[in-house]
Parts: sequence; C-alpha cells; structure tokens
Amino acid sequence: MAERILNLYATYLYSPAYWYLDDAERKCLRMEIADGLREIAKTTHVYSVFPSRSDTDFLLWSAWDADDPTQAAIAMKNYAKTMSTWRKFVQPVQTLWGFTKPSMYSKGKSEQDIDPFEGVRSKYFVIYPFSKTKEWYLMSLDARQGMMNEHIKLGKQFFDIKQLLIYSFGLQDQEFVVAYETEDLVKFSDLVMQLRNTEGRRYTLLDTPLITGIHQTAEEFVG
Amino acid sequence: MAERILNLYATYLYSPAYWYLDDAERKCLRMEIADGLREIAKTTHVYSVFPSRSDTDFLLWSAWDADDPTQAAIAMKNYAKTMSTWRKFVQPVQTLWGFTKPSMYSKGKSEQDIDPFEGVRSKYFVIYPFSKTKEWYLMSLDARQGMMNEHIKLGKQFFDIKQLLIYSFGLQDQEFVVAYETEDLVKFSDLVMQLRNTEGRRYTLLDTPLITGIHQTAEEFVG
Amino acid sequence: MAERILNLYATYLYSPAYWYLDDAERKCLRMEIADGLREIAKTTHVYSVFPSRSDTDFLLWSAWDADDPTQAAIAMKNYAKTMSTWRKFVQPVQTLWGFTKPSMYSKGKSEQDIDPFEGVRSKYFVIYPFSKTKEWYLMSLDARQGMMNEHIKLGKQFFDIKQLLIYSFGLQDQEFVVAYETEDLVKFSDLVMQLRNTEGRRYTLLDTPLITGIHQTAEEFVG
Amino acid sequence: MAERILNLYATYLYSPAYWYLDDAERKCLRMEIADGLREIAKTTHVYSVFPSRSDTDFLLWSAWDADDPTQAAIAMKNYAKTMSTWRKFVQPVQTLWGFTKPSMYSKGKSEQDIDPFEGVRSKYFVIYPFSKTKEWYLMSLDARQGMMNEHIKLGKQFFDIKQLLIYSFGLQDQEFVVAYETEDLVKFSDLVMQLRNTEGRRYTLLDTPLITGIHQTAEEFVG
Amino acid sequence: MAERILNLYATYLYSPAYWYLDDAERKCLRMEIADGLREIAKTTHVYSVFPSRSDTDFLLWSAWDADDPTQAAIAMKNYAKTMSTWRKFVQPVQTLWGFTKPSMYSKGKSEQDIDPFEGVRSKYFVIYPFSKTKEWYLMSLDARQGMMNEHIKLGKQFFDIKQLLIYSFGLQDQEFVVAYETEDLVKFSDLVMQLRNTEGRRYTLLDTPLITGIHQTAEEFVG
Repeated sequence: MAERILNLYATYLYSPAYWYLDDAERKCLRMEIADGLREIAKTTHVYSVFPSRSDTDFLLWSAWDADDPTQAAIAMKNYAKTMSTWRKFVQPVQTLWGFTKPSMYSKGKSEQDIDPFEGVRSKYFVIYPFSKTKEWYLMSLDARQGMMNEHIKLGKQFFDIKQLLIYSFGLQDQEFVVAYETEDLVKFSDLVMQLRNTEGRRYTLLDTPLITGIHQTAEEFVG
Repeated sequence: MAERILNLYATYLYSPAYWYLDDAERKCLRMEIADGLREIAKTTHVYSVFPSRSDTDFLLWSAWDADDPTQAAIAMKNYAKTMSTWRKFVQPVQTLWGFTKPSMYSKGKSEQDIDPFEGVRSKYFVIYPFSKTKEWYLMSLDARQGMMNEHIKLGKQFFDIKQLLIYSFGLQDQEFVVAYETEDLVKFSDLVMQLRNTEGRRYTLLDTPLITGIHQTAEEFVG
Repeated sequence: MAERILNLYATYLYSPAYWYLDDAERKCLRMEIADGLREIAKTTHVYSVFPSRSDTDFLLWSAWDADDPTQAAIAMKNYAKTMSTWRKFVQPVQTLWGFTKPSMYSKGKSEQDIDPFEGVRSKYFVIYPFSKTKEWYLMSLDARQGMMNEHIKLGKQFFDIKQLLIYSFGLQDQEFVVAYETEDLVKFSDLVMQLRNTEGRRYTLLDTPLITGIHQTAEEFVG
Repeated sequence: MAERILNLYATYLYSPAYWYLDDAERKCLRMEIADGLREIAKTTHVYSVFPSRSDTDFLLWSAWDADDPTQAAIAMKNYAKTMSTWRKFVQPVQTLWGFTKPSMYSKGKSEQDIDPFEGVRSKYFVIYPFSKTKEWYLMSLDARQGMMNEHIKLGKQFFDIKQLLIYSFGLQDQEFVVAYETEDLVKFSDLVMQLRNTEGRRYTLLDTPLITGIHQTAEEFVG
Repeated sequence: MAERILNLYATYLYSPAYWYLDDAERKCLRMEIADGLREIAKTTHVYSVFPSRSDTDFLLWSAWDADDPTQAAIAMKNYAKTMSTWRKFVQPVQTLWGFTKPSMYSKGKSEQDIDPFEGVRSKYFVIYPFSKTKEWYLMSLDARQGMMNEHIKLGKQFFDIKQLLIYSFGLQDQEFVVAYETEDLVKFSDLVMQLRNTEGRRYTLLDTPLITGIHQTAEEFVG
C-alpha cells in the first residue's frame, strides 16, 4: 500500500433536470454513473445521503495512491473530466479531501484503521471536517499527548468502529477530515457523546458539517 | 414499543414547478403525496409551516422502530425512494433526526412524554436542534443534575405541554432535536420565556432554527 | 380589543416569472393581490420595501384577534391558502410573527402604543427581530427595571414615534419583534442613535435584519 | 444645498436573461437604463464593479434632497418604479442608504467632503457599511473625541482622498455607510492600512462588505 | 518590472447553460475562452479547481503592471468587457485582488518570490484571503518583527515553495491575498501544519476560503 493515499469525499444533489426525467431515464443515468465510477479513481464507494441531509442525495468516496507528487494532479483532473459527463443532472454540493499521514500521537497500525481499498464496507459512514483551536498547537507536546491518550483509550472501547484521518492543512479550509465506519449508528452516537466529557474537547474548533451516509452497492445505487 | 425509535423531521418547500401547475393538478399531487405517506415510514404526521417560516411549506414527522441497527439504513433508503416520486415539485429544506434514548437526568416515563406512534396529535408542533456548550460536559454530574432539576420542575408546571427528546450526537451537526406538542402557542411561549431565567440557560449553545408547524390531517393537507 | 393579537410581518420578492409579465399583466396581478388581502386576515397593511432592502419588494403586516388558542392555527392556514394563489409570482423572503402581551416593565396603555387595527397608518414602518443576552435574564428584576426606565424615558421624548412589541419566544428564533411607526425617518434614526448611549444596550444580543417599509394604500400598491 | 441629503448606493448583477440577449440587444438595454437614470433621482452616478466583486456588475449612487420628511418616501417609491422597467435583466444585490448629518466630532466643512451633486467624479469609489462596538458608545465623549482626532489627523494627510459619511441607525443593519473617492487606489489602500495602527480601530465592529467601483460616464456604461 | 503589479484571482463555475451544450460545443467554447484570455490581461494563467472545491470549475490568475494609478481602472474595465462574451456559460464565484508592495518585514528580493509574468508555472497553486487581528497592529513593531522572523525562517526551510503577497486593504474585505506555488501538495501541507506552532499564529484572524488549483496549459484547458 502507498505511504500517502489521497481521499476525496464528494457529495452530490440531483439537479432539477434529473427530476424532469422519467423513471426509466433516471435509472439509465444512474447505470451510466455506476459504470463510470470504475474509471474515476483507483476505488470509489457510493453512499446514499438523503434524508440524512436535505442538501445531498449521494456521497462518493474516492481514493488514489499518491506517493508521487504529480499523482494528485492527474487524479483530480481525471475525476473532473469523468464527472463532467453527468454534471447536467448531478450538482456537486461539497468536497472534502486530503492525504493520509502517520499519526504523531499513536504509533503503528491499528485494527480500527480504515483501508480505503478494501472491498467490503460497513453499512454506515460518517465524515466531518475537523480543526483544533490555535491554543492547542501552542501547548506542550506532553500536554497534547496526554489528552490524545484519553481520547484514544475511549475510542478503543468501541473496537468495532473504524476510523480514517486525513490531513487537509493548506489544501482546504479545515485541518483534517475525520471518517468513521460503523454497523450501528446508535453505538457510534454514544461514542461521540462520551467524547464530550474528555479534556481534549476544549480544543475542538470545528467539527461540522457532519455527513452521514448509507453504503450502497452499484446495484443498490442503480436501484 | 421499541427501546430505540428513529425520528425524522423533514421540511419541504414547493418548487417553482409546483406553482406552475393549476389548482386541480396541485390538489391531485397533494393527494398522491398523502397516499404515499402511508408507505414512507411506520408513521408520518403532516404539519403546515408557511407563513410560520418563509422557507418551508410543510413538515413531515416520520418515525420507525430502530432496535435493530440495520433498521435505520432500511428506513432511510425507503424514505428517499418514496420521496423521489415528488422531488420535481417538492424540495427538501432541512432534515433533523436522531434516536430516542432513556434520559440520564430523569428516571422513568412521564405523562408529558410524546409517543410518536399515537394517532391523535396536538394542534401545534415546535422543534429545534439543540446543543450544550463544551463547559456543560466538563462540569460535575451533580452540578448538571441540579440545573436539570430546576429545568424539569418548570416544565412540569406546564403539564399539558408534551416533549420528545432525540439524540443526534455524531449523526448531524447538533447534539439533540427537541420537539414539543401543545394546544396553546401562547402558553408554550410563556414556558420558553420563563426558562430564560434558569441557571442552565447559560449552557445552551444552539437552539435555532426553530420550526413551528400546525397539524394537518391527510384531508386537510389535500385541501 | 382582544387581549392577545397575532401579528405577522411577511416580506415578499417578485419572482422572475413576475418580471416576464408585461406592464398590464403585472398591474392586473397586483390588483388581484390587493383584492385578496381583504380575506387574508382581520387587517393587512401594505408597505413597499425596495430599494430600502435589495431582497424584498413589499411587506405585508397582518393581524388577527387571538385570545382563543385555536385562532392562530386557523389564521395561519387561511393565510397560506390565500397566498398560494400568487406564489408563482411572489416569493416569501422572511416572516416575523408573535403575540402581543402586557409589558412587565411599564404598566398601562400609552399614547405611543400601536393599534394594528387602526385605519390610518404612518408613512414609515420599521421592524426587526430582537433578543437579549443570557446575562439579562439572570440579573435581578430591579436592575432590569432600572435599565428599562432609562430606555422608556428616552422613548417618551420622541412622543410622535409609536411602537408595537410582540413576543416570539419559542415561536421563532428571536425573542421579540419590535415595530415602529413614524412620519420622519431622520427623527427615528436619531432616537436609535441616542439609545446606543444607554446602559441596557449592553444586553442586546440581536436587532437585525432591520426592515424599513413605506406605507401604501391599496391604490398605490396597484399603481 | 439641503441640510439632509438621502444617499442610496445600490449594486446590481445582470440576470441570466441578460446574458441570453445578443450584443446589440444588451447595448440597447444599457442605453435605456442610461436614459432612465436621469429620472430615477436628483443625481445618479454609475460605477462598474465586476471583477472587483464577483456578485455585482455595476453600482448606482443616487442622491436626493431630503429636508422634508416626506421626500424619502417619494424618492424611494419613484426609484422602485423606474427600476422595475429593467428588473427582468438586472437583479438588485445590495442596497446601502442613509442621510447626511453634521458630524459631532469635527466642526465645519472640509475640502475633503464629498458633494453628491457635483458633476465631476473621481475615478474610484469605495463604500462599506460601518458600525462601532457597544463599548464605544458607553465611553466618555472626551475619550471618543481623542480617538477621533487621531483618525481625522491621519485622514488629512491624504488630502486628495474625499469622504462622505451617511447615518443609517434604525434604517438598515449598519450604523453608517462610509464612501471614499480617490484617483489612486494604492494610495487609498495605504491610508486604510495606516488606520489599522490607530487606537480607535479597537472599536470597529463592522466594515464589510466593501465595494470598489470604477466611475463610468453614461457613454462608457452604454459601451 | 513595474513597482506595483495588480493581481486578480477569479474563480468560475460553469452555468447550467454550459452543461446543456454537447461535448463538441463545450470544447468549442473553451477554445474561444482560451483564445480570449490573451486579451484579458498582460498575462493570465489557468487552473482547474473542481473537485478541489465544489463551487468552482476553474481559476484565472491575471496580472497587470499598475504603477500608473489609472491602469487598474483600464485593466478592470477591459477584463469585464472580455469576460462578458462568456458570462452566459461561465459564472463568477469569487474574485480576490490587490497590489504587490515591498514588505516591511523582509528586505530585498528572495528566490521564493513569485513573478506573475514568468512563463513556466508550478503544478499546484494555493490562494486564500488573509487578515490579522486588531491586536497585531497595536503591538510594537519589534514584537511583530520577531514573530515575522520566526515565520520567515520556517518558510525558508521549504525553499522550493514560492510565495506572492498582495495587499487588499480598503479594496476588498480582507487585508491580503496570499498565493503559493508548489510541485508537491503534501510538502506544502506540512509547511502549513508547522506554521500552526509559531507564535504569530495567534494573530491570524482570517485565512479562508482557501482555493487549490492545478495548472493547465491552454491546450489542457481546451481538453
């Protein structure tokens, strides 16, 4: 696996032109999109979003190897070109992206790390942009490590919830994008609620807008 | 009744395409929607919103049993599919959702708890997203319980106002969605005004946008 | 006069479809609206807004008796139904509403109180949503009364500026909607400027967006 | 010259309908607008804005004598009526307005005061809404005068930059609208940068959105 | 080279009308735009943006000599006129602009300074508006110089990342626009992350929205 993986989470809303198509035409279009997704990236996973959010019908999670600095440019241009086939019917709402990077707070691989290129996905997928306050970065590394330890311990108790952290510093407005996979939204909701009681929460500046998606196979997407 | 109930409050605006229909066509469409709502969830209640809000014509409150973690996915996908029939004429404005959960501050059932599956509904329905400040979660449980007691006592004096609290941590941007049913908006307004004088108010971070709806039977919705 | 009066301030923008009509068709539509306003509420006053605001062409101020808790529901549903006749040409921008209520800070009626049902209106009408800070409500009633006295004294010096305060707690995002009638905008502007120097100003959380309208008779609205 | 002058700065974006016209039709429309501007106010100056702002194609600065309190109503209604001729092609983006008033901090007329009715205008025109913090108004008049003196001295060093201050308290969301005329944008930019170092800057609450326009004669506007 | 260079960064979204064209027509339009860009400014560079941002398809970076104060007016008017040819298909999203100016914190030219008129460009281009807090400008020049030295030292360690700072005080809402060129987004992201640990970060008020573009030759833009 590459050291650096480019991950792109892009949400889409069907445009009015889509809703003017009849059922058969809509299905035909979704079939074309499902076919095209194979070319759009090394891997692309599909999630339905509405009614979880009112501004989004579906979410595409695409990933590419990106050890070579030119790969991001090639990946992005190719993505834009492929997507242009359907832009009349499908409007981008939000894109969140960044690169994986070894954590400075926890060494080594964990069973709870998400592998974007794995074939089997969990039912639910939750992502949000994430930034820490200015004060966080001006604290001692020891203090920060202590607070991260509290955070990591709690996360380990929810061992069937998996996580992917990507770095967006200088690439988008947020510092990170956090992604979670889970088979049980209520359990995940409990984890997030318990994290409110940890000291590190004081240093969260931004963790919205949150996007919750439901995994769809290509067949389910076509409907 | 299920331990966990998924509640979804979704607001809609009629699109320009709707206003280009004539009266008979609009009525026909509303009739189709009223029929379709039976399939959209275990139960769906309809509320008119405009002119209470300028961006919303009506509100649908849907609820499902959700003890099994796969039920939310099935419910959401089915909802999206059914609603897609009318999306040309009806645009989603906002969706607020989450799961019920036993309160940590008050034990047992209360007469003022709302049962989503009950057939008879109050005339007025008020909902808003709700979040507490970071400081709230880092206070002692005793301090929090004390402030909640003050809040609960005041609520009990308004015994004919009923309440439903759902948990949205990690599912949407807010922590909770609060819903109230009342037969008297002025009385409800007085309750909210009196809650301004309680200590716990300091720890409210978010309680907007507020949505006020007026209950409609299927017949009233069709008009 | 009823103890409780429901007041609704609704602003509208002509839609692109309106601007595609020719002059005679537009006038005909405005004539229909002017006629329809008689049915929309117990009383409805019309104000032109553009160019005072760029997002609004006109403002409708409607009022109903509302001592009976069911009246608000009937009023709102009837308003929505009547307005639906013109929604193709007229888009709601903002609605602000609430109920009158005896003030806790000043007893009795004042010459400067606005009566919504009076036939003759002032030339200028200014409204805005209004909320106080959390700190305000947690201060002693004596401290609050003192600051309100300073505010009221200043208002009395501008004896020809009239005022209507409605309560929106729990009905919309703001706590109040404040409305003023005046024959002289410059004088009103001076009053608002002088109120900046009063102690109570510290506790103003929200007083925007402000809407300034110019009174129109039905004939002037039709043009 | 009148004691009180009503100034209205209104920005417009060409609508999609305009871009569907061919070149000759567009020119013809701009010719009609240029002609109509003579009737819209006592004086109206035209400024091109795009690409200075992405949401605005041009800015109209209109001014009227307004010593008589009824003049504002007549001016606004007449403006709206004339502008309605072109609203299909031209959408209002933002309007900023208010009345002139003798300054409480500097006595008498200055060479740097802008006269709206003067025929010859500078090349560049910069405006923004402006509000001071609550703290400003609760300070002693002496402290405020001292800080204003520092501000005024700096402004006088840039003697070829002219200024117009209008009062919007109670008329729009901001307290003032500030306008500058200059022949040299870089020099003006230096003035604004140097004002950052003055004590009074602490009490600026709002000075955005800023609009920069380039003066156009009627002929240049028609193109 | 001129002392003052006017730089304009403008982002565009293809309008629905563009997506209604077929492939050949879209290519033809992009060819026209590519041709027209030669006339729009002294130099114009093209960058693809989507999917890096969801609201933008491409970015144009234009630059002009601007030592003479009238040049900005001529440049802007000419830009608007040329761009008007394509506005039916291409909507402006955001424009960021300002003038170069010798730095008060670092003397002389650096190898890391960007020359807008150079023919060869780096693969990636990152820009954002930038403002400092009020407190920054009220600190001693020594304190500010010290913090800038820490910032500059870190930047020099990333010697292959180039920078262009333009001044927007009084021209737009932000104080500066910062632009970076890099061949490696991950390295740039690391630089931005490390800058979080510097003392000067406390005084950053605004550094969003950030725009990341990928350089395109005219041929690549036409596709």
